[in-house]
Amino acid sequence: MTAFDDLMAFQRQTEALASIAGRLGWDQETVMPRGAAAQRGEEMAAIEAVLHARRIDSRVGDWLETAEAPDPAAQASLRLIRHSYDRATKVPADLATEIARATSVAQGIWAEARRADDFAAFAPTLETVLMLKREEAAAMAGDGDLYDALLDGFEPGMTGAGLEAMFGALRPRLLALREAVLGSSHQPAPLQGDYAEVQQLMLSHEMAEAFGYDFHRGRIDKAVHPFSSGSGADVRITTRTAPHDPFNCIYSTIHEVGHAAYEQGVDPAYALTPLGQGVSMGVHESQSRIYENQLGRSRAFTGYLYGRMTALFGDIGVSDADAFYGTVNRVAPGFIRTEADEVNYNLHILLRFDLERALIAGDLAPADLPDAWNARFEADFGVRVDRPSHGCLQDVHWSVGLFGYFPTYTLGNVYAGCLHQALRAAVPELDGQLAQGDTSAATVWLRDRLQVHGGLRLPRDTIAHACGFEPSEGPLLDYLEAKFTRLYRL
Amino acid sequence: MTAFDDLMAFQRQTEALASIAGRLGWDQETVMPRGAAAQRGEEMAAIEAVLHARRIDSRVGDWLETAEAPDPAAQASLRLIRHSYDRATKVPADLATEIARATSVAQGIWAEARRADDFAAFAPTLETVLMLKREEAAAMAGDGDLYDALLDGFEPGMTGAGLEAMFGALRPRLLALREAVLGSSHQPAPLQGDYAEVQQLMLSHEMAEAFGYDFHRGRIDKAVHPFSSGSGADVRITTRTAPHDPFNCIYSTIHEVGHAAYEQGVDPAYALTPLGQGVSMGVHESQSRIYENQLGRSRAFTGYLYGRMTALFGDIGVSDADAFYGTVNRVAPGFIRTEADEVNYNLHILLRFDLERALIAGDLAPADLPDAWNARFEADFGVRVDRPSHGCLQDVHWSVGLFGYFPTYTLGNVYAGCLHQALRAAVPELDGQLAQGDTSAATVWLRDRLQVHGGLRLPRDTIAHACGFEPSEGPLLDYLEAKFTRLYRL
Repeated sequence: MTAFDDLMAFQRQTEALASIAGRLGWDQETVMPRGAAAQRGEEMAAIEAVLHARRIDSRVGDWLETAEAPDPAAQASLRLIRHSYDRATKVPADLATEIARATSVAQGIWAEARRADDFAAFAPTLETVLMLKREEAAAMAGDGDLYDALLDGFEPGMTGAGLEAMFGALRPRLLALREAVLGSSHQPAPLQGDYAEVQQLMLSHEMAEAFGYDFHRGRIDKAVHPFSSGSGADVRITTRTAPHDPFNCIYSTIHEVGHAAYEQGVDPAYALTPLGQGVSMGVHESQSRIYENQLGRSRAFTGYLYGRMTALFGDIGVSDADAFYGTVNRVAPGFIRTEADEVNYNLHILLRFDLERALIAGDLAPADLPDAWNARFEADFGVRVDRPSHGCLQDVHWSVGLFGYFPTYTLGNVYAGCLHQALRAAVPELDGQLAQGDTSAATVWLRDRLQVHGGLRLPRDTIAHACGFEPSEGPLLDYLEAKFTRLYRL
Repeated sequence: MTAFDDLMAFQRQTEALASIAGRLGWDQETVMPRGAAAQRGEEMAAIEAVLHARRIDSRVGDWLETAEAPDPAAQASLRLIRHSYDRATKVPADLATEIARATSVAQGIWAEARRADDFAAFAPTLETVLMLKREEAAAMAGDGDLYDALLDGFEPGMTGAGLEAMFGALRPRLLALREAVLGSSHQPAPLQGDYAEVQQLMLSHEMAEAFGYDFHRGRIDKAVHPFSSGSGADVRITTRTAPHDPFNCIYSTIHEVGHAAYEQGVDPAYALTPLGQGVSMGVHESQSRIYENQLGRSRAFTGYLYGRMTALFGDIGVSDADAFYGTVNRVAPGFIRTEADEVNYNLHILLRFDLERALIAGDLAPADLPDAWNARFEADFGVRVDRPSHGCLQDVHWSVGLFGYFPTYTLGNVYAGCLHQALRAAVPELDGQLAQGDTSAATVWLRDRLQVHGGLRLPRDTIAHACGFEPSEGPLLDYLEAKFTRLYRL
């Protein structure tokens, strides 16, 4: 056994244990008895402790010093193991423990504060979590930027400055588009009526199949918040239903199928290695978004969906497929990120990116967060936030220490825009297929160009390799402007 | 931190990790996608490797040398940790790895051999597993008996000689009862008809509730083979349905509720300690058996069940509650242990006990197993075994190295007989309650006398403490003879 073999054998076991931890998370959100929460907390802590000990195991450092990679995939594995090892070993053990402890209680406090619409009840907790995360960032950053050190955990190679430039280019055109759309005299009608759960779930399964989800290596369950979980041969998704909003169920499913397709699409040879998963949050989100939006909300595919919905539910109060396309893509004002349409969504993210960067830099005090949030929201959305649960208390992320995570949502949209442009060039007959509910040309292209490579390349290079050009925000903006200019007859 | 505190903190994490491994097993048998089997195998191997390393961790040995127990529960915890540590450290690492590897492939080979009714295809595998288990037993036994060393893993404190005496007393009276029952001119009719799955599952849930299963800390799913899984705050059970045999679903559920009630009933203060689970296989089985048989198949409770079944299914072709009692408790010849009634069941176990003890002692060669099995079967059951899948290939246990496990089933029946005698004395009005579907007096008595104590006492002492007398086979025999003499009008 060479050092490389030893390291990869050790890593393989670590990946298997990490997969188990992920499966426990799935269990918790889908099937776990309610009374088991405290016990599950101890179980999760126990396996996280095992994983942490393995990630900072000094043998990994020793192996990394002498391991020689026989091929490019092995080189990439070594790079990813080194990246994880360097980050983990830079954080003092006491600090890592304290962050785990603080964030595990913070989520409950945040949930209660949001329920009570009481920012003051959450402020001290946010202060503690922020302080700890700044300490952690400082330990990892060395002389570098604190925010970049956190971002590097979700999107290796990306920087705050790089995002600032990209988001700076997005914001004015998104604001202009938003204003034009909301001011248009043509406004698509929202969907009306009641939609039985059993039929929503049938349709949801049908959509998962249409988008190539492999049920032999996955399953769909219900959960409060839809998510995708697992990698390789066991990638499960969840969805939810609301009687008046079947689109929630349908598009949550298609979104999660995008995430799952990435995991199911990775080369099986990479299973249980560092290459065996999606390479970053941003690239992952590019898959969920292109499935959900550029494909799933296209005129062609919504035409097919309209037929399926009227076949299943009878008259849904929408006159024809053109009107249905407008209804699916309706742009509406709103406070809540997770309910936002394609035009509004990224503006919610840009706001969070600027605020969390200021929090981490120390330029914004947690106590001042609501005012800063509300001022920015009014500037971008033209409405005053009426309560904290509609403002800075709406998202769980910061309570659990996820600083640097939000921008990957918009990065995913930007990447989806690039992939969509390249896909359209590669598959000119795509709309004809989507109109028949056949996504195979698109999903196979995405699998072969991107998903199959897993963690082989850096995130940005993964997109560039798939597209054949360097990613930028241009294709997303062009797509959004073209789509919504036509839809809203601007 | 004292050595005792350190040890208990370490052990707590080990218990939590073991609980995770159990949860993965549940997942595998209920919800796992079929394509995930190979990946799950690697996950299970990874967490088992972590658990094994912790069980033989030299720190445990160091702590055990100096740890001082502050109270009886702590003393019992130390005794159990020492028991596990001594057993695990006596087995050479290479042998432990080889057993894990061999038994993991053996199960598939056994299943295929049983399907093909081909003992020769399984014989070399059995030979290998037996050789490895004999080596393991020798490593653990020192100068002691090989079979006792294996038995000690399932039923601490019990010996092969002790079982031989007990089973020697059981066999003639069981054989005589069996002969009398099958020769009786009065034979209850079997159940006829089709029973819809959805109603079987409804009734199954109702029975679980009737027997006090706590759904807040558990759930019921379907599985090919019913089982109970987990401890403390998350104890799940499974059941199955067959259209012509609703008793299978109902009594599988009640049986598993018995196992689950034990785990759910343990003092929460013992959670994630060595005391936090059922103390042995035999005591565990006493709970499932007394729930299923002495309570669930009693004249009083079957009277209640008859009412529920006719309410749910309409006319089930059984004239009245007395006839129904006979139908539920019908004794029939058969080759298969898992389908056996109360009279036949233990005879199946006695056969296996004698044969596996001879295999481990080296007095019976694996190649001679079918002949030995068939001769004994014909002697006890009066019928020739017609094919290996009806004989020595019917059970999975030996293929996965479970030698010493079978006798705990009959031990459970013997213990259930003792507990039932004590329970009847303590709750004279029991039948009146059971006739109303109210099992609470019985289940609370079992919880308070036995289940709550978890692993505090040795298995036999656990039964003696609950009953107030030393356990023996007498009460079970008396119960069976009285019940079936009346039922079959002998």
